[in-house]
Amino acid sequence: MKKASIVTIGNEILAGKTVDTNAAHLAVELQNIGIPVVSSYTVADEIEDIVRALKLAGSDANVVVATGGLGPTDDDLTRQAFAEFLGVELQLQNDLLEKIRERFARRNLQMPENNRIQAYIPAGAKALENIGTAPGILAEYKGKLFIALPGVPMEMEQMFKSILPELKKFAGGQALFVRRLNCFGAGESAIAEMIGDMMHRGRNPLINCTVSNGITTLHIVASAKVQNEAKKMAEKDEKFLRDTLGELIFSVEEQTLAEVVGEKLARQNKTIAVAESCTGGWLAKLITDVPGASGYFTHGWITYVNEAKISELGVPAGLIEEHGAVSGQVAEAMARGARGKAGTDFAIGITGIAGPAGGTEQKPVGLVYISVDSESGCETGHFNFINDRPTIRMRAAQTALNMLRLKLNI
Amino acid sequence: MKKASIVTIGNEILAGKTVDTNAAHLAVELQNIGIPVVSSYTVADEIEDIVRALKLAGSDANVVVATGGLGPTDDDLTRQAFAEFLGVELQLQNDLLEKIRERFARRNLQMPENNRIQAYIPAGAKALENIGTAPGILAEYKGKLFIALPGVPMEMEQMFKSILPELKKFAGGQALFVRRLNCFGAGESAIAEMIGDMMHRGRNPLINCTVSNGITTLHIVASAKVQNEAKKMAEKDEKFLRDTLGELIFSVEEQTLAEVVGEKLARQNKTIAVAESCTGGWLAKLITDVPGASGYFTHGWITYVNEAKISELGVPAGLIEEHGAVSGQVAEAMARGARGKAGTDFAIGITGIAGPAGGTEQKPVGLVYISVDSESGCETGHFNFINDRPTIRMRAAQTALNMLRLKLNI
Repeated sequence: MKKASIVTIGNEILAGKTVDTNAAHLAVELQNIGIPVVSSYTVADEIEDIVRALKLAGSDANVVVATGGLGPTDDDLTRQAFAEFLGVELQLQNDLLEKIRERFARRNLQMPENNRIQAYIPAGAKALENIGTAPGILAEYKGKLFIALPGVPMEMEQMFKSILPELKKFAGGQALFVRRLNCFGAGESAIAEMIGDMMHRGRNPLINCTVSNGITTLHIVASAKVQNEAKKMAEKDEKFLRDTLGELIFSVEEQTLAEVVGEKLARQNKTIAVAESCTGGWLAKLITDVPGASGYFTHGWITYVNEAKISELGVPAGLIEEHGAVSGQVAEAMARGARGKAGTDFAIGITGIAGPAGGTEQKPVGLVYISVDSESGCETGHFNFINDRPTIRMRAAQTALNMLRLKLNI
Repeated sequence: MKKASIVTIGNEILAGKTVDTNAAHLAVELQNIGIPVVSSYTVADEIEDIVRALKLAGSDANVVVATGGLGPTDDDLTRQAFAEFLGVELQLQNDLLEKIRERFARRNLQMPENNRIQAYIPAGAKALENIGTAPGILAEYKGKLFIALPGVPMEMEQMFKSILPELKKFAGGQALFVRRLNCFGAGESAIAEMIGDMMHRGRNPLINCTVSNGITTLHIVASAKVQNEAKKMAEKDEKFLRDTLGELIFSVEEQTLAEVVGEKLARQNKTIAVAESCTGGWLAKLITDVPGASGYFTHGWITYVNEAKISELGVPAGLIEEHGAVSGQVAEAMARGARGKAGTDFAIGITGIAGPAGGTEQKPVGLVYISVDSESGCETGHFNFINDRPTIRMRAAQTALNMLRLKLNI
């Protein structure tokens, strides 16, 4: 089995000024083509340090992927370090120089002399094209692959995609198929309990579980001799997991809750408006993160003060007085008011206490009421989210989306 | 000068399932007490791999900080690896066992037998107290410090704080003072040009520059024999940078644009409302990210469709027909309408094309109009943001905050 090692290059990363997200991205992508990452090194922008890391990584693995240090300034030394490690000279590649010049020319700029260095590649290595200016490097050395990618995540991801076919070929005999199922509505441990032995370590497919922003993602990683076989194994597991977890699973792969909801609204030709208090626009932001949201999302109100709830949404002042602004009654009145004014098929009302201040014994920080109003009536839930202000707000917005999703399933 | 090396332990991190934020946190904290991080290793939950990484890290640095692998399950092997690396046995510490038992007892639970292992510490090493169950380890070995912290960020950060005095003492003679200045309104390269030679590598204080979400942060890192001297050097640089960059600098340390704006509004006893189209609630979300925003933020409208702009904000239908929904005239009418309805001192109107679809030759994707209305009149700017939908939306929301900030400076 082929293995990979990652070398992250950059003083910024080492000093903690930038959190390294490239290593995690590469690890998942490499794992998905059957090349697990077995080690990872972070080093400064120094030739000596980079060369040492390339040696260590090369002794751990068959594929070494380095990121960073390909920029045009004096402290970008990855090119030089690769040449030294490979024992060759850097060579000027005129076609690369021309491409870099053109890129500047298109913006009516002259190429700064500094950028010339980016057209140099270690002799015998292959230059990898970049959407930015810095070409990457791919070299074979003693039967192993050494790859240098840019540090800018978008450029790195695009360049990595371009070498995927080559890497897959290099990975050889084994085939991996990975399927991601995204769940909302139950915690990691509850889900683990529901699916029982399937998460056992030695199993094939392997079921990995990750949690991010309240979303639990199950990764079905099937390995077999041929891709088709691995795919079938994963599909069998997916079927079982869907039978077991039911509506907890809301999407596959990268699809977000807002995208699922948007797709359902568009398909059913329905519209939505929102009225937010404690989430302060976050729910609307999630909905409008999705390109084309204007096809179904029409109005949003952030009624942060009581007067706004009254004047903009027609929430009766007496209702706020009697039950408090954070109450099921007010959430419902907000949702009804928003639907009435916007004339949409659905409207969501959210009111809660995001903290850190404002909690009482009866109504602690984290208490949130969410209402979804539609022709068929108004459904209201109350939730006690824990953790800090950002987490409470985010969970409230996502829970609202999930309530709407379940309504749209019917 | 003392140096540090970080060892991150865990299959989850290596496989990219969890992004490692601990390393960056530790790097900044260590740098701030004068111990720069010179290398960083990420390894699997295997004794052999951990021991090798401890050796490499120990040859790079005087302080080695490992995180992760202190849990109670079979794949948590950091304790064992530390013992092997130090050449000693693991010893049961009865007081630790008692503490772990008590922690369970407080929740009316019996300690699972698995957790017993967490009371074992390498002979001669010191146990570090944890808010979770897993104690950390601090060992001196050949004049160097080897530290094991838990992988859970909150537990790690707390435990690291508890050993800060010891680490500062160990760091000895040198003192570092770090000051961060956050800038908005000019790009990294424009700022670098303005401050000229100050960013030279060999300089003391060293000026580092990082960019995140459109915010350029200058880090002044001053080192001297005593803290006070380093502080003075940094302050001298700060004064010069403030003279040079003026209003581009909006805050120091971790303070966000929304926090600065919120502080100014609160101090001047002013209120704000927002009317958003392309940003879809993101501006309101940024404003309400700040605890206590209800003191100055009252109303938000997300008028995503034209009818909403007309009915909710009173934008004349003819204005939209004549100039288009994405125009300075409509942004202004949105801001005026919002201020009129909310009765606030300020209101912001934003309308633009976030893409990916909807652009034309005259009005390309990225074109955004932003108006800030106040008693003294309405100021409107237009911007051509580049990049993808999330970047355009985020830059638009931040630019709006910055326009308001500059108004509040007067």
